[in-house]
Amino acid sequence: MNFKKMLENEQIKPYLLKARYGVEKEGQRVDLTGKLAATTHPKTILMSNEHPYIKRDFSETQLELVTPVTDSLEELFDYLSAIHEVTYRSMDKDEMIWPLSMPPGLPADEKDIVLAKLADPEGVRYRELLAQEHGRRKQMISGIHYNFEFGEELIQKLFKAQSEITKYHQFKTKIYMKITRNYLHYRWLITYLYGATPSSEKNFFEDKSLDQPVRSIRSSKYGYVNCKDIQVSYSSLEKYISDISTMVEQGRLLEEKEFYADVRLRGGNKVSDLEERGIRYIELRNIDINPFEQNGISYQQAEFLHIFLIYMLWIDESEQHDDWVTEGEKRSEKVALEHPLAITEFKAEAEAMLNEIEHMVENFELSVSENLFDTLREMVTDPSKTLAGRLFKQSEQSNQSQVATRLGKAYYDEAWNNPYQLAAFTDMELSTQLLVFDAIQQGIEVDIIDRHDQFLKLVLNDHEEYVKNGNMTSKDSYIASLIMENKTVTKKILHKQGFRVPQGEEFNDLANALRSYHQFSTMAFVVKPKSTNYGLGISIFREGATYEDYTQALTLAFKEDSSVLIEEFLYGTEYRFFVMNDKVQAVMARIPANVTGDGAKTIEELVAEKNKDPLRGRDHRTPLEKIQLGELEILMLKGQGKQPSSIPEKGEVLYLRENSNVSTGGDSIDVTDHIRDDYKNIAVKSVAALGAKISGLDLIIKDIEVPAANDNAYGIIEANFNPSMYMHIFPYKGKSRRLTMELLEYLFPELIKK
Amino acid sequence: MNFKKMLENEQIKPYLLKARYGVEKEGQRVDLTGKLAATTHPKTILMSNEHPYIKRDFSETQLELVTPVTDSLEELFDYLSAIHEVTYRSMDKDEMIWPLSMPPGLPADEKDIVLAKLADPEGVRYRELLAQEHGRRKQMISGIHYNFEFGEELIQKLFKAQSEITKYHQFKTKIYMKITRNYLHYRWLITYLYGATPSSEKNFFEDKSLDQPVRSIRSSKYGYVNCKDIQVSYSSLEKYISDISTMVEQGRLLEEKEFYADVRLRGGNKVSDLEERGIRYIELRNIDINPFEQNGISYQQAEFLHIFLIYMLWIDESEQHDDWVTEGEKRSEKVALEHPLAITEFKAEAEAMLNEIEHMVENFELSVSENLFDTLREMVTDPSKTLAGRLFKQSEQSNQSQVATRLGKAYYDEAWNNPYQLAAFTDMELSTQLLVFDAIQQGIEVDIIDRHDQFLKLVLNDHEEYVKNGNMTSKDSYIASLIMENKTVTKKILHKQGFRVPQGEEFNDLANALRSYHQFSTMAFVVKPKSTNYGLGISIFREGATYEDYTQALTLAFKEDSSVLIEEFLYGTEYRFFVMNDKVQAVMARIPANVTGDGAKTIEELVAEKNKDPLRGRDHRTPLEKIQLGELEILMLKGQGKQPSSIPEKGEVLYLRENSNVSTGGDSIDVTDHIRDDYKNIAVKSVAALGAKISGLDLIIKDIEVPAANDNAYGIIEANFNPSMYMHIFPYKGKSRRLTMELLEYLFPELIKK
Repeated sequence: MNFKKMLENEQIKPYLLKARYGVEKEGQRVDLTGKLAATTHPKTILMSNEHPYIKRDFSETQLELVTPVTDSLEELFDYLSAIHEVTYRSMDKDEMIWPLSMPPGLPADEKDIVLAKLADPEGVRYRELLAQEHGRRKQMISGIHYNFEFGEELIQKLFKAQSEITKYHQFKTKIYMKITRNYLHYRWLITYLYGATPSSEKNFFEDKSLDQPVRSIRSSKYGYVNCKDIQVSYSSLEKYISDISTMVEQGRLLEEKEFYADVRLRGGNKVSDLEERGIRYIELRNIDINPFEQNGISYQQAEFLHIFLIYMLWIDESEQHDDWVTEGEKRSEKVALEHPLAITEFKAEAEAMLNEIEHMVENFELSVSENLFDTLREMVTDPSKTLAGRLFKQSEQSNQSQVATRLGKAYYDEAWNNPYQLAAFTDMELSTQLLVFDAIQQGIEVDIIDRHDQFLKLVLNDHEEYVKNGNMTSKDSYIASLIMENKTVTKKILHKQGFRVPQGEEFNDLANALRSYHQFSTMAFVVKPKSTNYGLGISIFREGATYEDYTQALTLAFKEDSSVLIEEFLYGTEYRFFVMNDKVQAVMARIPANVTGDGAKTIEELVAEKNKDPLRGRDHRTPLEKIQLGELEILMLKGQGKQPSSIPEKGEVLYLRENSNVSTGGDSIDVTDHIRDDYKNIAVKSVAALGAKISGLDLIIKDIEVPAANDNAYGIIEANFNPSMYMHIFPYKGKSRRLTMELLEYLFPELIKK
Repeated sequence: MNFKKMLENEQIKPYLLKARYGVEKEGQRVDLTGKLAATTHPKTILMSNEHPYIKRDFSETQLELVTPVTDSLEELFDYLSAIHEVTYRSMDKDEMIWPLSMPPGLPADEKDIVLAKLADPEGVRYRELLAQEHGRRKQMISGIHYNFEFGEELIQKLFKAQSEITKYHQFKTKIYMKITRNYLHYRWLITYLYGATPSSEKNFFEDKSLDQPVRSIRSSKYGYVNCKDIQVSYSSLEKYISDISTMVEQGRLLEEKEFYADVRLRGGNKVSDLEERGIRYIELRNIDINPFEQNGISYQQAEFLHIFLIYMLWIDESEQHDDWVTEGEKRSEKVALEHPLAITEFKAEAEAMLNEIEHMVENFELSVSENLFDTLREMVTDPSKTLAGRLFKQSEQSNQSQVATRLGKAYYDEAWNNPYQLAAFTDMELSTQLLVFDAIQQGIEVDIIDRHDQFLKLVLNDHEEYVKNGNMTSKDSYIASLIMENKTVTKKILHKQGFRVPQGEEFNDLANALRSYHQFSTMAFVVKPKSTNYGLGISIFREGATYEDYTQALTLAFKEDSSVLIEEFLYGTEYRFFVMNDKVQAVMARIPANVTGDGAKTIEELVAEKNKDPLRGRDHRTPLEKIQLGELEILMLKGQGKQPSSIPEKGEVLYLRENSNVSTGGDSIDVTDHIRDDYKNIAVKSVAALGAKISGLDLIIKDIEVPAANDNAYGIIEANFNPSMYMHIFPYKGKSRRLTMELLEYLFPELIKK
């Protein structure tokens, strides 16, 4: 079958870069000095080995991080990054992940390497057998497994372009068998470029069998390989299956999965499934952990592997399948054992191959990272640019363990830097990022079905839930959200149920509203558009208004909405009650932007100082916003006889804003434990009256010490159907309330039972 | 207590016109010739006498229409109008409502007047006693009862402005007692202006006791009054209560409610409740039906009654309460029995009173209808302008019965003219109007809590449901609506469940989309913005596209939304499946605007002819839209080698639009009974997969005769979370599917059990 020709079809090109990916990445838990952790697997990560993303491999210290299958490399790396961050922030604060494939210094007695403490007795038994068969030391090597499947449409189109094979699954198998043989033949290039295990740490070798640095211990005979006599033929799928089965039957392999090939053919639970269903995807297992990447693999590596696999399909192979593979093995072994700074024996071939791949990429109009091939060619010319070369050179200045510890610490710092976000998902809302974090930690599968729209699908076993914006769920009814969205309807319902809401009226035209002037002229009142939310078009009159001011306020409000509300103004502090499932989960006081004087610093300096808080940022990327010193703030200061250069007295509190929104620099203060129960009861009952399950209820309370039953003690301003959760989780002051976790437990009550 | 002074306070003024209203209006069912109906109460009106809006009074033919309590006169008349329309359209098509207080010609033998056939034996027994006591004839008189309550805020403010009375309910009682006495004293003015029963019809009087025309038979001793010895004192509430109780005890009244006063004091189920709770509102009962109004009372009448009641509070009264009332009774009787065209004996006093009321209105800055007082003064000067005068004068030309029949028929026509709407609610969406119609018919209380926002509260006994836009309810979850709102999420979920959706991709920037040109270049595809709905920014390529056209289409689409979908174009007809509660309720084919030639008329003439259909209108005020002949239609004709002046052949169908939206003149054709069950199953299962309960699913089907399992037989385009219902209820062709009724039965399953 002439794949070369088939691939060169115009209709095929758009599909060549469409594929599905998955990565598994192992790594040892160590303390911040690089010493193997003595602790058990983190308690905050539930579900031990049922966890879809964070597992234990051979030993109790060996993490295995697993991404879901993704449709793009971007997604793959986003998940990889998020899973890493969750793992870091779930571990003890004085632990990190060792950034090398070769394990950190091991105990002198390999018996002190603790096997993974799994609940499942089968898993424990298998590890005991492995320890017996291969020794515990070798099992401590970590690596990257790169799972790859061509897009269905590509295979379909290729299938239709030929007539030789009539069964689709056989055709797929043919494709992946060719790729696998070619990959095994040419894998030495990958070993050269991405090999990254030049040296081992203390006690890895019992017998000092390897005493000079190489490109990849892991890919060599000293690494994680089967013994010489385990040989499997890739000449056909049938042969491959029967070879493995025979060896398991003969007891030469403990299990099928003990066959440590550089490429594993995948497509079922058991190898024999492959025959019936065909190969669905392949797993590249010869990738060392890249020490220079927090994720252990770079985007360019993953991208090149994809292109390399297209090339493996494109170039011809030898008809002598077994020899072809064996020759590849020999070459890879040679390259693996070359000195990390030595020019490789296969330099000329490497250069030719890269040129040919680049030509193919251009010919197929594949869009790849800029400089991809320049970088690769440089690595061929200059071995110190390869991963092994870089690690070796850096280690020369101190030692490999110190380099690894330094790199590991840097990734650790990065993961802990902004604990309120997921670095790969900062384009999403903070509350959604936190929910994704908690879901990953709890072992709930997260499918981001519309990232732009904050739309998640969460799956735990057979239980599916959809969530939008962090808190829009199946728990609320459609009409409850619409009730909350409509301020007039909300007020009418609450009023009817006997709750105190600001009195007022809705107007649909200016003339009517003007006619009602006398109704409001001498009271404290607010004019606001009915449905906008961000303070636009709102005027507050604390002591009545002249007819002129009244007219102007109405004109402003009608610019924002065709319906305008005039309501009594309620005196007091605004509290946000976050109610979920008939319970007050958190109460937050929101205080307008302010600074407190120290008798020395100017207002400007005090603002700058307060803005240093890492929780303060801009554009809702952080839990709090930086305080501005703009027109409004300066006006507000002027009203108090101050300016930015004024020096407030020690302890003097200066407000810089009238409104208390966190988005304009306000402070969020958790007061959940300080609010009287009667107010909490009102909040719970109000939300129930609206028929809602998740709501952020805003109450004005005159004095939280005073009973709610007192005259005008409180008023309910509005019910928010999309209340933010992050501000309760990262308040300016007070206790953090992990609402995203509460939400998960509400959606998945089975989590609590575990 | 000086109410005059208290009312003149600036702070009181804004509240004087705030009040709560309710109207009960009786009326006899007659056939279209004005003959008393021989039929029973309409079967479509459920719940017999438990019905909140449409009841039977004394006889089986006597309707009693009852509005809910409203906060404004506008609302009051809207409900009155809607209840009338529902009543008309629930009656036999050859019946109408007699527009006079005096009944139509009665049977010679009063035994042939059929008492209301109530299920409740108490009610039947009471009517039998009434018939025995007063005779059946008198009970056939109909009237208007006008219920009035001052706004709570007004009473509160007046209460706080005095210190004489310390109990709020006693203060309220004082107000209403004064108003009642003054009203009874001055009611002759109302009798003069609004009396409208100059003559009776055949067999009303057994003995011809009244043989000349008067102003108001009903308000005179010949009307619906208790016998002379039934006298009750209004000097105090205690006296009033004890007088009535005594008469009931003595058997001089059958029940408390048999006391037919012109003003009834209200505030509890029994008269004795009044003592404890105070008077809550008053019921004016001396209002004849206004024959010149479909609703039996005009807005100006209701408005004047309100002002008249303020005046009753404002003006002084005599300390001799009983004499004061008795004098009023005498005057009213005199006025009632004056000739309808005679100048009234109390002309000078009437004029003085109107001037004083007008002066009060100006002084209080009350906004009232223009010309209100000019009109009233004219009625005083010229008796032929009074209601009795007008009816009498018109009757002189033929006879009263003919005039009444003609007026009744006009109201009947009005009610039937646009059966798809409620005349008072045409500012609301058609589906909501139809839902309100059905709710009223079913006896479900309808509270329009936000008219502008189509927000209804429906109540049946203790069961409350909120509905927005006719079909957004508590039955759907919040997340299901958000899933349907998001086309990408909808498609992903349906695709995963194995349903056929158009293949395609979402792009968030132009560059990425352009790069995918080859993926679509040779297929039939559609470019569309992700979230707009009205066809804006959509381009269809039926046979692939050049790169230039592709670029242009994308540029257009990105103008509408930051996310753009490119999808395969599906060939076939678009069908809307309306799914509710896991059942396909209706299926509609939507056909682009078109005309069918007759071999004689031009396209322009054919369009004009088709547009005559009363279902076709503009701006969604009717179930179908008029076909336009604008730029797009002319372009479309041009493509077929035609122009508006072309004459299509007989039977030739010409399409004037590419899109099939009803909003651009398309035809809606009900095909519910013609669609294969497999497509219906797909619709039900798809909607279930989205977790939705109410959804309008759009399917493209190639051929509805072909099984859905066939290759590419169908594709699901989108799921609408706010599907319109009216187009299924009033289709262009095919069977009407009363979805609003189905919705009510879904929300209130107890309706079906009845």
